[in-house]
Amino acid sequence: MSTPQTQSGFHVDTLAVVGVGLIGGSVAAAVRTRGLADRVIGIGRRLERLEPAREAGIIDECAIDPAAAADADLVVVCTPVDRIVADVRAIAAQARGEMLITDGGSVKQSICRRLCSGLPDGVTFVGAHPLAGSEKSGWEHASADLFENRVCVITPDPVQAESPAVQQTTAFWQAVGMRTLQMEPHAHDRSLALTSHLPHVVASALASLLTERELELAATGFRDTTRIAAGDPDLWTAIFLQNAEPVRAEIDLLIHRLQEFQQSIADGDDGELRRLLARGKTRRDRLD
Amino acid sequence: MSTPQTQSGFHVDTLAVVGVGLIGGSVAAAVRTRGLADRVIGIGRRLERLEPAREAGIIDECAIDPAAAADADLVVVCTPVDRIVADVRAIAAQARGEMLITDGGSVKQSICRRLCSGLPDGVTFVGAHPLAGSEKSGWEHASADLFENRVCVITPDPVQAESPAVQQTTAFWQAVGMRTLQMEPHAHDRSLALTSHLPHVVASALASLLTERELELAATGFRDTTRIAAGDPDLWTAIFLQNAEPVRAEIDLLIHRLQEFQQSIADGDDGELRRLLARGKTRRDRLD
Repeated sequence: MSTPQTQSGFHVDTLAVVGVGLIGGSVAAAVRTRGLADRVIGIGRRLERLEPAREAGIIDECAIDPAAAADADLVVVCTPVDRIVADVRAIAAQARGEMLITDGGSVKQSICRRLCSGLPDGVTFVGAHPLAGSEKSGWEHASADLFENRVCVITPDPVQAESPAVQQTTAFWQAVGMRTLQMEPHAHDRSLALTSHLPHVVASALASLLTERELELAATGFRDTTRIAAGDPDLWTAIFLQNAEPVRAEIDLLIHRLQEFQQSIADGDDGELRRLLARGKTRRDRLD
Repeated sequence: MSTPQTQSGFHVDTLAVVGVGLIGGSVAAAVRTRGLADRVIGIGRRLERLEPAREAGIIDECAIDPAAAADADLVVVCTPVDRIVADVRAIAAQARGEMLITDGGSVKQSICRRLCSGLPDGVTFVGAHPLAGSEKSGWEHASADLFENRVCVITPDPVQAESPAVQQTTAFWQAVGMRTLQMEPHAHDRSLALTSHLPHVVASALASLLTERELELAATGFRDTTRIAAGDPDLWTAIFLQNAEPVRAEIDLLIHRLQEFQQSIADGDDGELRRLLARGKTRRDRLD
């Protein structure tokens, strides 16, 4: 079989995506647009959701049976975090040859720990977390450019850190346009508790305070600060429960910071209040 | 003097803007673009900041002396909330004829209470809060379209609620493109504590937790949720201190909601967690 050289040099014959939603659909679209595979199979739970994705040209073939991925060289599992372990195992059980499996889950420790051993010979799992997405869901919002210049964290088990499978996983996520960095699963989870999970809790808690009467008064500040609260409650419930301890610890830290603001406002301490605000601004300015 | 009819029907001979920053500069730009005044005078504290605004065509004339606004029919005071009362009084003291003064302050009770009486005969103040702006500051970011379709809250003193001055103030803010609604100053402050001041506290507190190590891991969710933390610490210090009690109360409510999340995560209660997230999503979805 011909293996046309892509710009990145990355190419496989058959790639399967399990879970063709926003992330999985975007993986498929990026792979097809960039010519990274000859054939892209989309696997999901409902054919009536998959067929339109095939008709829209997101995937080449679709199936609900994991056996459809038996010949895949690379499988990208993009289901909710509480389903990834079972989905990886189901796919792995069907593998007919060498198979590399990676995922797109936003929590890594609970997934990677359970998949670092026990898979059939020839099948390797290397966890990954592409930091891309939005509050939208469904392949209808998928985009071949979703990953462009975003960061993907690769979280190999320490024993596999230098293995060819990790190199290939890294090459894949780079080939869809991402900058990669490598972290241990638990370190990833601790950091993401702050940079992703806590903002979601905050946005949701803040949005929940809005009453009908005040809808008209919520301008861009409120809208920006709460935008991610529109995300899927099921997806986020699973994320919080799989990263429970780090998320709880970050909520504690935030409450402490909020109490500092409260105290300085109660004291009428403009110097302290200015210091607190300047601290936030200094950190935020680093992001632009 | 000719008074060309504008689309809105609103027109004055001379309009002065005190404080030519993002809001004041945008008021001036909108007034000029829409032909709402024959002459727009910009008044500020530093000529070296005002002259370039005049050269850029934001204002027709500039001055640091409030006496320059003596003949203005309408004065819009857009200085920080802790300077508005003094600036309104300084302008009012110079008025040579009938003069209407409005402002753009994000806190109203402390300002309106002190200005509802004691101004010279013929001078009337009607408070307003145009819900527009951004984390940027300075007239360089001003835009004639900043107010387009945004909400402006007019906060007259109860005794003046139906007066011609209130009608004229309303007509002015509508003429720069805004939808107006009328509230009592203390009701405005209570609502804005939730819809604007609390999000700023939250964004700043959240941003302050970010460490150097985690910069790379802050994706769009973190960025959106903390965007407004880049705002000017001096401006926001004054806002929080002038609306201290409502802001403190809102921080309390938010902490309570955060603790609900913490508890449900600690309990591993996926039903409750889903309910909390769905509540936030339902409210947030109303904003789009």
